[in-house]
Amino acid sequence: MPDAIKTLGVLLFNQFELLDAAGPIEMFSHLPEKIKILTVSEKKGLVYSSQTLAVQAEFDFESCPDIDFLFVPGGLGTRTLVNHSSVIAWIKKQAEKAELILSVCTGAALLAKAGVLDHRKATTNKRAFNWVKQQGPKTEWIARARWVDDGNIITSSGVAAGTDMSLYVIERLYGKAVRHEIAHKTEYIFNEDPDADIFYTEK
Amino acid sequence: MPDAIKTLGVLLFNQFELLDAAGPIEMFSHLPEKIKILTVSEKKGLVYSSQTLAVQAEFDFESCPDIDFLFVPGGLGTRTLVNHSSVIAWIKKQAEKAELILSVCTGAALLAKAGVLDHRKATTNKRAFNWVKQQGPKTEWIARARWVDDGNIITSSGVAAGTDMSLYVIERLYGKAVRHEIAHKTEYIFNEDPDADIFYTEK
Repeated sequence: MPDAIKTLGVLLFNQFELLDAAGPIEMFSHLPEKIKILTVSEKKGLVYSSQTLAVQAEFDFESCPDIDFLFVPGGLGTRTLVNHSSVIAWIKKQAEKAELILSVCTGAALLAKAGVLDHRKATTNKRAFNWVKQQGPKTEWIARARWVDDGNIITSSGVAAGTDMSLYVIERLYGKAVRHEIAHKTEYIFNEDPDADIFYTEK
Repeated sequence: MPDAIKTLGVLLFNQFELLDAAGPIEMFSHLPEKIKILTVSEKKGLVYSSQTLAVQAEFDFESCPDIDFLFVPGGLGTRTLVNHSSVIAWIKKQAEKAELILSVCTGAALLAKAGVLDHRKATTNKRAFNWVKQQGPKTEWIARARWVDDGNIITSSGVAAGTDMSLYVIERLYGKAVRHEIAHKTEYIFNEDPDADIFYTEK
């Protein structure tokens, strides 16, 4: 169990998918003595989710404090962001230093484009699977998975799967009792089997 | 099935619980041709969730357009907001005009305080149950329920239950196929039985 307080840095960008970020932020927020959450974007200020809800990025890339756990949500915005070199370079640099790298949904496309997923196992959103795969030709993509744990990199499938993945990460880091308490407090029905993926359909 | 586009008004306040609002906003946002989502707070601008994430309220009470579906999330902020007369008065006024009134978690305390739940069935967060009950002595509180449908008022239990409740509302309004498509798109495992409440424990 980590003893120092860890900083979870949530990367935000226009057209991120709200629940990709909000589900995990909700779960990690119930560990205020263990994890500090910050939000970061290329420019600080309001960032618009695909749900039209705007949220505040507290830091830009220059002002952002050190991040222990890098968190990358997905969303429609990733389609253009994979070609946005300053964002990809920032992800690459952060991932080299981070203890833990997490993505939800098409957030994996950004990690892949930054080379972070080369020769690693990962998963992503079902409906954007083929597009994400193209961003990471050297990645071993797992199509049937709620999430994939590859050591310091944990990736989840689409949107809501990220909330399950977060509770799994909480259990891995801080134990089952802590995970259980958070799931109960938030009345969240945790889907604990990463291989039980009801959204997978064989092509 | 409603034929006109409906406005879902999300009430925001400091120390609202992020997932209470973000889960439902995520689900309703996948109906852009049926539902327009707006955010409103007593003062427009940044509103801070208990998760520290700040989100933007687009409207204040004066500038807010007409609302068809009133949505009230919960959170620690409700503890003081029940005594905030201008907010309670606004809820009462909106509820009188709204076609549908929805709450998640301790959002039900605000509805109760405004008299909206008098002689109606409702549920709320497990851990704050007794406090919420005190705000609505004329309400028939249902302790064991993921959500409670009382016609034009649908209330859910704690935090994550609101996401299930939203999908139920979507199914009630627009049909099972629409609900199924949204759950699949967001890879959300819908818990479809309102009576299957694993968080209920007999006292």
